[in-house]
Amino acid sequence: MYRTHNCGELRVQDKGKKVTLAGWVQKARKLGGMTFIDLRDRYGITQLVVEAEAPEALVEAATSLGREYVIQATGEVVERQAKNAKIPTGDIEIKLECINILNKSVTPPFTIEEESDGGEDLRARYRYLDLRRGPLQRALALRHKVAHETRNYLDSLGFMEIETPYLIKSTPEGARDFVVPSRMNPGQFYALPQSPQTFKQLLMVAGYDRYFQIVRCFRDEDLRADRQPEFTQIDCEMSFVEQEDVLNTFEGMMRTLFKNVLDVEIPNPIPRMSWYDAMDRYGSDKPDIRFGMEIHELTAAAQGRGFSVLDQAGYIGGICVPGASEYTRKQTDELTEWVKRPQVGAKGLIFIKVNADGSFKSSIDKFYAPEDLAKIAAAADAKPGDLILILSGDNKRKVQTMLGVLRIEMGNRLGLRHPKEFAPLWIVDFPLLEWDDETQRFYAMHHPFTAPKPEHEKWFYSDKKEDLERVCANAYDFVLNGTELGGGSIRIHNADMQKRMFEVLGIGPEEAEYKFGFIINAFKFGAPPHGGLAFGFDRVCALFGGQDSIRDYIAFPKNNQGRDVMIDSPSAIDDTQLDELQIALKLKAE
Amino acid sequence: MYRTHNCGELRVQDKGKKVTLAGWVQKARKLGGMTFIDLRDRYGITQLVVEAEAPEALVEAATSLGREYVIQATGEVVERQAKNAKIPTGDIEIKLECINILNKSVTPPFTIEEESDGGEDLRARYRYLDLRRGPLQRALALRHKVAHETRNYLDSLGFMEIETPYLIKSTPEGARDFVVPSRMNPGQFYALPQSPQTFKQLLMVAGYDRYFQIVRCFRDEDLRADRQPEFTQIDCEMSFVEQEDVLNTFEGMMRTLFKNVLDVEIPNPIPRMSWYDAMDRYGSDKPDIRFGMEIHELTAAAQGRGFSVLDQAGYIGGICVPGASEYTRKQTDELTEWVKRPQVGAKGLIFIKVNADGSFKSSIDKFYAPEDLAKIAAAADAKPGDLILILSGDNKRKVQTMLGVLRIEMGNRLGLRHPKEFAPLWIVDFPLLEWDDETQRFYAMHHPFTAPKPEHEKWFYSDKKEDLERVCANAYDFVLNGTELGGGSIRIHNADMQKRMFEVLGIGPEEAEYKFGFIINAFKFGAPPHGGLAFGFDRVCALFGGQDSIRDYIAFPKNNQGRDVMIDSPSAIDDTQLDELQIALKLKAE
Repeated sequence: MYRTHNCGELRVQDKGKKVTLAGWVQKARKLGGMTFIDLRDRYGITQLVVEAEAPEALVEAATSLGREYVIQATGEVVERQAKNAKIPTGDIEIKLECINILNKSVTPPFTIEEESDGGEDLRARYRYLDLRRGPLQRALALRHKVAHETRNYLDSLGFMEIETPYLIKSTPEGARDFVVPSRMNPGQFYALPQSPQTFKQLLMVAGYDRYFQIVRCFRDEDLRADRQPEFTQIDCEMSFVEQEDVLNTFEGMMRTLFKNVLDVEIPNPIPRMSWYDAMDRYGSDKPDIRFGMEIHELTAAAQGRGFSVLDQAGYIGGICVPGASEYTRKQTDELTEWVKRPQVGAKGLIFIKVNADGSFKSSIDKFYAPEDLAKIAAAADAKPGDLILILSGDNKRKVQTMLGVLRIEMGNRLGLRHPKEFAPLWIVDFPLLEWDDETQRFYAMHHPFTAPKPEHEKWFYSDKKEDLERVCANAYDFVLNGTELGGGSIRIHNADMQKRMFEVLGIGPEEAEYKFGFIINAFKFGAPPHGGLAFGFDRVCALFGGQDSIRDYIAFPKNNQGRDVMIDSPSAIDDTQLDELQIALKLKAE
Repeated sequence: MYRTHNCGELRVQDKGKKVTLAGWVQKARKLGGMTFIDLRDRYGITQLVVEAEAPEALVEAATSLGREYVIQATGEVVERQAKNAKIPTGDIEIKLECINILNKSVTPPFTIEEESDGGEDLRARYRYLDLRRGPLQRALALRHKVAHETRNYLDSLGFMEIETPYLIKSTPEGARDFVVPSRMNPGQFYALPQSPQTFKQLLMVAGYDRYFQIVRCFRDEDLRADRQPEFTQIDCEMSFVEQEDVLNTFEGMMRTLFKNVLDVEIPNPIPRMSWYDAMDRYGSDKPDIRFGMEIHELTAAAQGRGFSVLDQAGYIGGICVPGASEYTRKQTDELTEWVKRPQVGAKGLIFIKVNADGSFKSSIDKFYAPEDLAKIAAAADAKPGDLILILSGDNKRKVQTMLGVLRIEMGNRLGLRHPKEFAPLWIVDFPLLEWDDETQRFYAMHHPFTAPKPEHEKWFYSDKKEDLERVCANAYDFVLNGTELGGGSIRIHNADMQKRMFEVLGIGPEEAEYKFGFIINAFKFGAPPHGGLAFGFDRVCALFGGQDSIRDYIAFPKNNQGRDVMIDSPSAIDDTQLDELQIALKLKAE
């Protein structure tokens, strides 16, 4: 070893010890005749000191050091005169006897500090330098810890981690599959898995009972902000279980992770909310329940006063923004513009200010007398000082969704979304099916293998559209602070029920055989009842770290064009390689 | 839950309990009026019994059960009359009150037993059924355990598991890279990593100090028996270490795995052998030291008796096969044919039988008097009863390698290679460079980033071929029972030394920049001294399980043509997919 101790562990109790440290020069500065060097490694920073009266060679060596030089330094642990309470090693320094330069460094293109002066692109290009910074070191340490605790928890419950293949088969609707040409089988391709869904269900057929895997998944889709072409899931499946068993098992996992990684106690039990309630109250299937500002339906209270916009609406809803009754005209105008942006899509915004004295001021004063406004305010459960924001429209779910987006925005503006506060939630009772007006058919809200709730089976076998619409699925999402972290379902294991599902979805026997034949065939050999879920591991880590973006929680992420700018990938390959694979480029004209 | 207990946990102490089990019908048989059912799950087998006087519906249900039906069964734990000592649940059975058929099964294409009646191809096609069998269940459970213990050990030493990308860049000598066309970057390709070597070295540059990853690797090569296009490595790297630190760290890991997974104590310390010794004594850089039969050089002892084959040989070596002096002519002829096969490549085989009475019988009696044979036998350290097998040739290493192959064969034939006996070994002091006569240049034996041993640096900077030939590398392999399970090296972290390495390898500055520019550039920013190694995880698992083949230790392996016959992959993809990727097939005529 090049060191006796790391740069984070020496304390005043080690006074008098002769030690050797190794690491990177964070900074070196002269003060009087002395040289002070901050030496950094993954474990911390320790101050080294070369005294004015030290041998000339040593003073010279210390003077020659540049930022990010790698050195080995030997000396005695001494107590500092001027202590630094900000770092754990701040009570001591090392009085150097020897410096060995292990490697020099050219000047890095940006500062390696908590806050770097480098722009995002530059830091991405030199990711290996950005990764030296404290925030990224802590992010990856957190990620390791979350993975390790996840494995320990699941192992303790008898889950087996089983690796599923990465070179699989492109599925018929695999437009978003990455494919891999096979040299040994010319003209044929593997596909990279979007998830191990099929394989984990096969493992249940194979009797593995409790499976998990922390596994890479791949999706060749246009990348929205903060999506990655390769991402990691905690993928799980269990046999002989009902929904309650799955929820309890993974509630326990999240509780353990919060406790062991963050020392945070989350609510016990984690609250559950039906999909219907979530939409009605929060306008979202992944509500942030760290703050209230719930949606209230105002349809009855607001109609019948001759204001056609509202009178003709199918649904009217509002939220009460606390303490915002003093908003200026400029502020309410800005909010109106905000909801009219295409990302929200509202036609306009109605507001009612509930003044501290109980009086009202609204954008609809022309149509509504104070007692009418009072009625609406009562329906909105508004309090003095509140600003009621109201949206309306034909489609209830659409209006609720807009109100949900507005609610999150107001939560952000009011600082109600504390990153270190954690409000987990299960969303349950999803509709099994979604009717699409355009194609006049049902689609599976989760996927075609999701089972209906047993008590709704009577409707599932009904031919009436309104019956089918009210069938709930044994499906569930784990939501944290307004982000969906995971989701899953109890699967259909019964051939007759699966047949009915395909029938409802308008998938004929041939199409079913073509698309799903392989798994349907496996299910003929005694599939057990089973269900599971998957968590988005990158996002779990980011939220545990109190961050929105997953990028800092992935060691080597790709940018929004799917490029790794550090290694400059993807890139052209040799003609010989193309030739061996027996494929050719066929680039379209722009 | 569909069960109160699993099929492996009930004991005679549970007598009288009312329980519900769920699982697969292993078999059901009538005996008198009673029906006995063996119910199986991952945890074991429990016998269920339906008595003759049970309600008719129950008897009927029991009678209707077929192999691999999935059932839920409720009843009382009772002590068996006829106990079965072979299974842990053999003292009890469940007197059934109720059977609920959860799923029927069509008749499986082969028996789901310890030893199946299905052929290899059929079992591969129905892998999910083969995976129900005991040997595969135990293999995957072992794999999970090895992975889990590996992670616990490395975590306890401060190693961080860091995921490196799977979509990387094809390297210039990437003929064996799988590539992935990028839809968003038409004409460009990602490559799947053959190993995370570059990334783990970058993580050292980034200061992560101790990295590991259990990671998938990909290699598009013609598959020899028991190679897989995707395989798993335990990949590790450490900073500020010397070879001794790496060896000690991973010796500790293997010791922990043997202890915690198999309850086996391996030698402490694990023996080390130089590459030169391994070649001289075992004719292999991965010797199986569970048995002796070492190679002895017989050049001096055997030459000078006028037998031109030996007199003109550059090297003569032999092994003593104990107890084989009684081999018949037929047996020695067969051995001669065996070494002449192209896989071994010897021109012939000379033998000397050392009879129990001390007399000799050899294939070279014409040229060698008994006292000559005695001299050879003494050089071979032969004992009465031994059969000395002798090979010769121009090239010492080639002859030794043939003798090494012959030695393993004799070890197999004599049953000296017990699968449950474990003889680990470090091979160290590999030559840094290999001279190639054809191209008249040196090649790196490991890779161009492997560091020479510090004490050999004087030769490394010499211009003499014989000096360069004797430079040893700080490289090491972990060998178990004749199989290389892992290997690695201390890397060059110094720019001047790296430059010298390229010079020695005849790689000019431009070629170096083109091939390795990216990593060389990263190294300019303060690379720490570092080194590491990687273990072949599939093979570690197989050897721990006492098996030669890795196939049963991978849940969904591919066959020798790189095909997954279960999902029928690789396969053709749609024209629309090709079109989106802007590539076309360009199949060569056969």
